[in-house]
Amino acid sequence: MINKFVMPEVIFGSGSINQVGECSIRLGARKVFIVCDPGIVNEDWLEMIIRSCKEVDLDYVVFSNLTVNPKDYEVEEGRRLYLDHECDSVIGLGGGSAIDVAKAIALLSTNKGNIQLYEGIDQIQAPLPPQVMIPTTAGSGSEVSQFSIIIDSVRKKKMTIVSKSLIPDIAIIDPQTLSSKPPSLTAATGLDVLTHAIEAYVSVAATPLTDVQAQNAIALVANHLRPSVASKANLEAKTKMAMASVQAGLAFSNAILGAVHAMSHAVGGRFPFSHGDVNAVLLPHVMEFNLLACPKKFATIATLLGEDSRGLSNIEAARKGIEHIKKLSLDIGAPQSLSQMGLDEENITEMSITALEDACMITNPRDISLSDVERLFRQSL
Amino acid sequence: MINKFVMPEVIFGSGSINQVGECSIRLGARKVFIVCDPGIVNEDWLEMIIRSCKEVDLDYVVFSNLTVNPKDYEVEEGRRLYLDHECDSVIGLGGGSAIDVAKAIALLSTNKGNIQLYEGIDQIQAPLPPQVMIPTTAGSGSEVSQFSIIIDSVRKKKMTIVSKSLIPDIAIIDPQTLSSKPPSLTAATGLDVLTHAIEAYVSVAATPLTDVQAQNAIALVANHLRPSVASKANLEAKTKMAMASVQAGLAFSNAILGAVHAMSHAVGGRFPFSHGDVNAVLLPHVMEFNLLACPKKFATIATLLGEDSRGLSNIEAARKGIEHIKKLSLDIGAPQSLSQMGLDEENITEMSITALEDACMITNPRDISLSDVERLFRQSL
Repeated sequence: MINKFVMPEVIFGSGSINQVGECSIRLGARKVFIVCDPGIVNEDWLEMIIRSCKEVDLDYVVFSNLTVNPKDYEVEEGRRLYLDHECDSVIGLGGGSAIDVAKAIALLSTNKGNIQLYEGIDQIQAPLPPQVMIPTTAGSGSEVSQFSIIIDSVRKKKMTIVSKSLIPDIAIIDPQTLSSKPPSLTAATGLDVLTHAIEAYVSVAATPLTDVQAQNAIALVANHLRPSVASKANLEAKTKMAMASVQAGLAFSNAILGAVHAMSHAVGGRFPFSHGDVNAVLLPHVMEFNLLACPKKFATIATLLGEDSRGLSNIEAARKGIEHIKKLSLDIGAPQSLSQMGLDEENITEMSITALEDACMITNPRDISLSDVERLFRQSL
Repeated sequence: MINKFVMPEVIFGSGSINQVGECSIRLGARKVFIVCDPGIVNEDWLEMIIRSCKEVDLDYVVFSNLTVNPKDYEVEEGRRLYLDHECDSVIGLGGGSAIDVAKAIALLSTNKGNIQLYEGIDQIQAPLPPQVMIPTTAGSGSEVSQFSIIIDSVRKKKMTIVSKSLIPDIAIIDPQTLSSKPPSLTAATGLDVLTHAIEAYVSVAATPLTDVQAQNAIALVANHLRPSVASKANLEAKTKMAMASVQAGLAFSNAILGAVHAMSHAVGGRFPFSHGDVNAVLLPHVMEFNLLACPKKFATIATLLGEDSRGLSNIEAARKGIEHIKKLSLDIGAPQSLSQMGLDEENITEMSITALEDACMITNPRDISLSDVERLFRQSL
């Protein structure tokens, strides 16, 4: 079996955000298109980026007209502005939505037609302009991944776009940016990190290079997510969670994901729920279902989470891991069911059909049927 | 503290060597300059590369006029040929020497003046042509690193050239290529991998991203170097050692090295000894010296090597690790002293002065004086 592993240059540490101007110049940029969350416009981070650009005489345009679970028409508007302003590179600042939009605008700035044309794996032809991404959550991992997830507003589905071209040139991870986030967002994004790491670890496309990243990310989440949710000022916990997010991102970018993400994308295409919250609810149910496919790996997950599995069979140890995750999710106040978020029976069959077609389903370790997906959705209600 | 981590695209697995033509085309190549060990010309690997180039209509020129511990004038000759033949990209095939030469030729193909101008850190100005590297030892890690080590034939010293530009675009690691190597070479290169991993792990520039790679590499060497030396046909052991080499390479490329390499470069600049053999002799002595700087990390090394450190202090555990390495080196028939290789007291002071100036010394975890280096050399005689 031949494996591939690709990643961007990573710059990690408190204060690293100030290097963004210099990084863009190094990549040949003269006028950057800054894509950011609307909510972030009033935080210090955007100002720091603009200052960094000014210091190196870099022109810039700011675009923040995007929503959580970003839409095709938002990306289209971004492309028009990028081209109108004759930009030559992209900076993304924010959570996964902002970074996914930044990547999709970079894509459309050099590739013709609408974003739908690029859905799936390796559909991008023309090279993309330089991209520097700065996440402010820990997080989506999008700053290091070859993924961009954009909603098709007509078909009401999340499109998974996968291509090496979507790996940014440079990812700048500054743990300080995490300190301005409320506990509910820290919890949701942190459980998203855990989901990335676990799905990548048990993926059929996992490799030794992705396994080390995934394992480390799982252990970091187990030790540092609770304190990170507990305190905005705990910079050590933020730093560890930022590293977990990067490592989980590297793992899933190269090993892809599984049924949790396929199902979560199907939900997110129809409802404006938090991606991390949906993942958090689905994760234990999907783990229980997948257990059969690789009990040893699931037992290792339990150990990485800090469970003592001496004297237990792999299946028994694995179940302790699943219980651990349920407890973690409760402790940090994440939603415990999809119905609690507002979902009911009505859309389950349609969403299950959509989930089965998602690119992330290909690497799920256990074969899965429509009725399996429907049952998993029902269990999660 | 702000950390950076950079790596090439990695393609790993048996049979991956056949992708080299396609990879070069993807990078825009039309005429590749293939740099390889003279010894490898008669093995199948070069033929496979040429076949892969022909399949995609890629022109090529083969250059194999290089020696172990490669020299400045060999690189200069390579540059002349590269430019005469109007090549536009480089493929390196072989051990660390061939790959270091391939990288240095890529450097000089677009940067003026002699190779001496680029000694040290970040001296390269012009971008390099596309580079695809295929190691046939496990190994130097040069296929993923930002290092090239070239001898200045006048000053009789190994120049350490460090730059992100020297990170190849693609590293193709095909464990099958390791099967044609004699046990003494497998042993020397395998101990080089261990040295990379250990020096990177205790380096003052180590980061969480380099630590995971270094730790994994140490454990892989502990478990798979002996069987890899024992049998050319043990593809599982070769595959594990190939992975260890990549991971150790990623660790040291980003965390740099320490006193073992600084001293070993000083030896290699003057004497045609195997780099891996010299490292293997120096490693336990330098570990004993460095122990003081980070006992906990050295204790972890012992655990990764498989030692039981329950009930021991960090220093005691660390010493078990050092003993483990001495035993491993004996088991696989590596040289046990520099005098056994032909070195005597005579050049120690000169070599120690050279070692102190080596770029690798900057990241050694313990401050080191000229008399320390001299003493370490004497202990290793």
